[in-house]
Order: sequence, then structure tokens, then C-alpha cells
Amino acid sequence: MTRMEQQITFIKEIDKLKSILRMTRLTDSSRRENSAEHSWHIGIMAFILSEYGPAELDLIRVMKMLLIHDIVEIDAGDTFLYDEKGHEDKAKREEQAANRIFGLLPDEQGQALHDLWREYEERKTPEAKYAAALDRIQPLLHNYLTGGTTWKKNGVTRSMVLEKNKHTAEGAPELWAYARSLIDESVEKGYLQPG
Amino acid sequence: MTRMEQQITFIKEIDKLKSILRMTRLTDSSRRENSAEHSWHIGIMAFILSEYGPAELDLIRVMKMLLIHDIVEIDAGDTFLYDEKGHEDKAKREEQAANRIFGLLPDEQGQALHDLWREYEERKTPEAKYAAALDRIQPLLHNYLTGGTTWKKNGVTRSMVLEKNKHTAEGAPELWAYARSLIDESVEKGYLQPG
Repeated sequence: MTRMEQQITFIKEIDKLKSILRMTRLTDSSRRENSAEHSWHIGIMAFILSEYGPAELDLIRVMKMLLIHDIVEIDAGDTFLYDEKGHEDKAKREEQAANRIFGLLPDEQGQALHDLWREYEERKTPEAKYAAALDRIQPLLHNYLTGGTTWKKNGVTRSMVLEKNKHTAEGAPELWAYARSLIDESVEKGYLQPG
Repeated sequence: MTRMEQQITFIKEIDKLKSILRMTRLTDSSRRENSAEHSWHIGIMAFILSEYGPAELDLIRVMKMLLIHDIVEIDAGDTFLYDEKGHEDKAKREEQAANRIFGLLPDEQGQALHDLWREYEERKTPEAKYAAALDRIQPLLHNYLTGGTTWKKNGVTRSMVLEKNKHTAEGAPELWAYARSLIDESVEKGYLQPG
């Protein structure tokens, strides 16, 4: 295969992410969201909300990271945030998926995206922390706007939401303050169980 | 409204793009693609294929442009490339949509995105030409991979495809050469009518 053919093979392959369904519903509750459109949404949030992220943010790295962060789900599936059992072997399943899917690209290009994906997963750099914050705030907003449908269906409580989303504070403290206000309001309105 | 509330209002509003269906089908033919996941796909193509774009490309501008380029469809709907009648008032409908939707953001931020959207539409800068090329190549690839379903259904011929997509050559000549090979092969295989 030529270099361009390898790239086109990858571009065809990732079309499958449009068929990976998340637990989150669209804000009008009409259907479950897929991981490709979710990635598009947070890719836009990255530049709209950049003023709340770390200073001297490498925005293009954040945007690439967010657009590719879920691609491993093509093989590994979407693991619901509150699915403890699913998280036991998530890292291993996703690493194998990353090897296969980024491996479709020309070597140095695939390696660079694999590294970027790992940077996102490790959540150590300012860019990865900010990206991870956006990845949490978007479904939280959807849950709030749909009256907590996904939370109710899965018996999620306030303390579970706080625990799983607290690292948002590291990547975007002002957005975390906003998210906390949504969480409190969700409890008041009965969208989310207290406790 | 605070500045952040205006930004969140915009982020909520654009969720509607996930319900705007295009004529193009997913590569597995299972359903029509929506404009949000299409935008995600070409947002990734922007950096995977950047070596075929103009020299000294401002890649972040391209990526922002591609992620927002279809947002106006929330009000104006998706206009099929080969729908001559729909194109008569497309510009006007889309300009009104841009005013309303980008107008949800804080002034300077909304203006910057509105300008970026117009830059894309005008297709004069290297970034806009490259972005527009990607926006054409992705559906062409989908049409090829689905055996020309959308072309057949709408009586699209080879000369129509060449005419509507020829500007791809300006933004990414090597990708246009690849696209032409797909078009020729589509005619040979009976996916696309000759003439």
C-alpha cells in the first residue's frame, strides 16, 4: 500500500465510531448519542471554552486528542463511566484497539496519534487534563438537560457523580464550579439521587 | 446572562446538528449520516491528510472551520450538492442562520466564528480551499464504498460529480487525483452513470 492508501484505510475504518452508542442521550432525549458526534461536540467546546483551561494551552493538541480519544471504542466498545466491572479490563482492551487502529496509518503518523491517545488517558499534561474535563462536562450537561434519564436508569447517585468527575477541577476549575451547580440542581429537581 | 452562560447556550444549541441528516450514508450503508458526525470525520481528515494541502497551512483554523462549517444547517437544513433548486436561496438561508446561531456567543467570539464560517464559504484562502476539498472527498468516498447508493437514487452522472467537485484540485491536487480514480472506478462498476 502507498502512504496515501494507508491513510485512506484509517479514514474508512474510523467511520465505525458513528455506530458506537454511548449511554448519554441527545439533549432532546430522542436517541442515544454516538461516540463520533460526541467527539465533534467536545472538539468545538475545546476552543469555545479555552479561556477556562490552563494558561498557555496547546489548543491544537487538545482538539486532535478529543477528536481521536474514543476511536479505540471501535474494538473495545464504550464503557459506561459508572460500570465498575467494565473498567476492570478497559485499559487492556483499549490498548489492543489502539495498536490495531492507529497501526493502520503510516508508522510515524500512527505512533504520534497513539502517543496522543495515551497522553489523554494518562491525564498528566495540562492539555490532557483540560480535554478530560470537557469529556466529563458534556455528558453531565446532557444528563441535566434530559432530566437525568441515564442517571435514573443506572441508579447513579450524587456522590458517584462527584467522585467520577472531580478531576474536572484540575483541568478547568471554573467549569467544575458550573458542573457542581448543575449537580446540586439535579438533586433538587429529582434528576439525581442524593447521597 | 454571564459570558459562560452564553457559551453554554451555544454548546446546547449545536447539539441539534446531530439530528440534521445528510444524503450520504455510513460506509456500511446502515443509515444516513448526520452533519455532526460528518464534521467530526473531516476534522480528523484535516490533520491526517495535511501533507496534501497547501504549504504553510494554519491547521487549527482548518479544524475549527470544518467543525463549525455545517452548524448553519440547524436552521437552514442540509442542501444536497446536486439540488439546483435548493442552492438558489441557500446563501441567504444560511447567512440568517449564522447570524442567529453564532449570535448566541459573546460578541467577539461569535463574530470570529461567523467570519471563519464566511471564509470557508468563500473558498478563497488556502485554508478554506483545503477544508472544502476534504468536505467533498469524504462523501465521495462514502458514495464509492456504498456502491453509489446516493448517486443512483438521485440520477447523478459522472460529469455532474466532476463539475461539482473539481475545485478539490485547488485545495488538495493529490487528493483530487485520488478522487478522480474513485470516480472512474465507480463508472466502471456501475455505481455512477457515465456521461
